[in-house]
Amino acid sequence: MTSEFNLTCPLPIQNYPHILLAHGGGGKLMHQLIEQVFLPAFGTENKPQHDAAILSLNRDRIAFTTDSYVVQPLIFPGGDIGTLAINGTVNDLAMAGAKPLYLSVGFILEEGLSMTTLWQIVQSMQQAAQEAGVSIVTGDTKVVEKGKGDGIFINTTGIGIVEHDRLIHPRAIQPGDVAIASGDLGRHGIAIMATREGLEFETTIESDCAPLHEIIAELLAAGLNLHCLRDLTRGGLASALNELAIASQLGIHLDQTQIPLREDVKGACELLGFDPLYVANEGRFVAILPESEAEKALAILHRYPDLCDRAAIIGRITANNGGLVTMRNQIGSTRIVELLSGQQLPRIC
Amino acid sequence: MTSEFNLTCPLPIQNYPHILLAHGGGGKLMHQLIEQVFLPAFGTENKPQHDAAILSLNRDRIAFTTDSYVVQPLIFPGGDIGTLAINGTVNDLAMAGAKPLYLSVGFILEEGLSMTTLWQIVQSMQQAAQEAGVSIVTGDTKVVEKGKGDGIFINTTGIGIVEHDRLIHPRAIQPGDVAIASGDLGRHGIAIMATREGLEFETTIESDCAPLHEIIAELLAAGLNLHCLRDLTRGGLASALNELAIASQLGIHLDQTQIPLREDVKGACELLGFDPLYVANEGRFVAILPESEAEKALAILHRYPDLCDRAAIIGRITANNGGLVTMRNQIGSTRIVELLSGQQLPRIC
Repeated sequence: MTSEFNLTCPLPIQNYPHILLAHGGGGKLMHQLIEQVFLPAFGTENKPQHDAAILSLNRDRIAFTTDSYVVQPLIFPGGDIGTLAINGTVNDLAMAGAKPLYLSVGFILEEGLSMTTLWQIVQSMQQAAQEAGVSIVTGDTKVVEKGKGDGIFINTTGIGIVEHDRLIHPRAIQPGDVAIASGDLGRHGIAIMATREGLEFETTIESDCAPLHEIIAELLAAGLNLHCLRDLTRGGLASALNELAIASQLGIHLDQTQIPLREDVKGACELLGFDPLYVANEGRFVAILPESEAEKALAILHRYPDLCDRAAIIGRITANNGGLVTMRNQIGSTRIVELLSGQQLPRIC
Repeated sequence: MTSEFNLTCPLPIQNYPHILLAHGGGGKLMHQLIEQVFLPAFGTENKPQHDAAILSLNRDRIAFTTDSYVVQPLIFPGGDIGTLAINGTVNDLAMAGAKPLYLSVGFILEEGLSMTTLWQIVQSMQQAAQEAGVSIVTGDTKVVEKGKGDGIFINTTGIGIVEHDRLIHPRAIQPGDVAIASGDLGRHGIAIMATREGLEFETTIESDCAPLHEIIAELLAAGLNLHCLRDLTRGGLASALNELAIASQLGIHLDQTQIPLREDVKGACELLGFDPLYVANEGRFVAILPESEAEKALAILHRYPDLCDRAAIIGRITANNGGLVTMRNQIGSTRIVELLSGQQLPRIC
C-alpha cells in the first residue's frame, strides 16, 4: 500500500483485461501470467522453474504450516488478501517458536478476475514477504469458471526453522502462568465488517494485520520461558483461549477490565452486535508464561508501540475449571466464555 | 476405494448433512469437523493440535512444493480429487529427486457440500498418503458461501528430503540425452472428460493417477545419471517437454511412432477432438538421461508393469532447434509441437 508500488501491470492487459480459463490451462497464457505478473512481483531470485524448490536449511528442526485465505472484500482498510496470506502464515510459524523462512503460494483464481486486482494483490504479497524476511519459493495457479470461485483464494504454506529446544505448546502451560494479550483486540474483524456493510465511523478502523515474528524472536532471545503462543485470528481471543484450555486441560480465568480494546472498536462492536472477544485479529497474539517473567515480557512488547502499546496481562491459568475459559467482569461476577457456537464472521481471513 | 474404507462418516450427519458456513468459522462445528472427520481419516499420530507442525529431518536439504486441486468431477474412474491431491504433490517431490515425507492440506469447502462426499475424499487422501509413505502433518479448512466455490478445492504442499547431491533439473539436460516416457499417455484426461461428457466406451478408461516416488527412488538407487524428471500433468507431454526445451534452451526431437498410447485412449481422443500429446496424466513422467543409460532405466521401469509396461524412448535432445519440441511422424515429415495455445481441458487436476 505504499508509494513504492508499481501499479502498472506488466502484462499487456489490453489483450487480457480479465483472467481467462486459459490462464490456468498449462499453456502460453499461463506462462505469460507467471512470467509477467507473478515473477516480476515476487522477484526472480528464487524463480520457481522446477516443480519443487530445493532448500538448504542450516538445522534440521523445522516448523511447517498452511492456510488458505478467502477473505471478502479482497481489499480492506489496512491491507488486502495478499498481505493477510503472507502475515497469517508468517505468524503461524512465529507462534510455533520458529523463524519463518520459506513460503509456497497456491492461487485459485476465478475466471473474470481483474488483472489489476491480481497485480495489486501479488505486489502486496511480495512487499509483506520482504518485510517479514521470507522468500516465496514455489507456487501454483488454478483457474475456475466464473461463478465457481470468488475472485481469488490464496493458500500459503510456510517452513520455518526452530533454533532452540524449548517446547512452546499447550502441553507446556502450567497453573499459575499468566496470559498476556499483545495489543488491543478486534480491529481486523471490524475493518472487514465495516467495509462489507458500508459503514463509516468517525475514523476508519484499519486491520491490525502485521507480521509478529520479530517480536516473538525478541521474546525468545531474552530467554523468557514462553510456555505457549497463539495468534488471535478467526474466532478471536475467546476461540484461541478455549483451544488452549481444552488442549492443556487447565482453566483460563480472565479479568475483563484488563482486556485491551479501543473505544472505536468497542463502539463498532456494539453497533454490529459482536462480542469483541470473538472478533478476528491478524496482528495480535496471546503469550502464556510464568507470572515472574510477565513484567520482562511486557517491557519488550511495549518497545513495539505500533503493535503492542496496549499489551497487558489479561488472565491467569488455573488448575481448577480445567478445559474452561472464565471471565470476571467489571462488577465482579464471573461467567464462562464459551467456544463460539455457529459462526460469527464468515470469510474474515 | 477398497473394502477397507469405512464409509460411515463418524460425524452425526443427521444433524449436519451438509457443510455449513459455521464449519469454517473457528467454533464448535469446525472443531467437530476436525475431530470427527479429518482426524479419524488422517490418523491421530501426527494430530495437528498446534498451528505449525515441528518436524525433525535427518538431513537439511529438502524439496518443497505446492498444488491446489480443483478437478471436476470430484470423483472419477480410477480416483477422486483426494487421491489426486496426494499423488500429485508426492510426484512433484519425486520429480525433484526427493523422498516425499510430509504434506500439509488446505481445504476450501463450499457451503452445501455433502458430508458423505467429504468423508470419501478425506479417506482417499489418507489411503493415498499411506501408500506413498507420507504423513499429513498440518491442515486448514475454510468454507465459502454456496455459489462461491465448487464443492471442494484442496491444496497440498509437500516437503521431501534430498538424499543425494545430483542436480536433477532442466539445466542438467545435455545434447545427446534421450527422453523416456514412463508409460502410455492420456488416460487421466480422457477419464475425466468421458465422465464429464457422459461418454461410455467399450471398457472404462481409468485415470492413471498413481504415486511415482518408488520408481524414481529405484532409478536413483541404481546410480543412473538422471538429468531431468518431469511428471506429465496439466497440458500433457507436449507442455512438459516445451517447458524443458525452453528452460534448457535445447531442442527435443520426438519420434511419433514411439510414443506409447493405448488404442482406446487414441480412439477417445479422436472422438473428443483432442491431441493426446496435450492430454493430462497423473501417473506418468518423462526422464531425460544419457543414451548409454537408457536400457538400464527401461529395464527398471518395466519391473512396474501396472505403471510402466509401455515405457519407451520417445525422443532425443539436440543442440539445434533450441527451445523447440519437434516431432517426426509416421510418414517421415517433421513438425513443431507447440506450447498449448489457450486451454484444452479446464479443471483436469
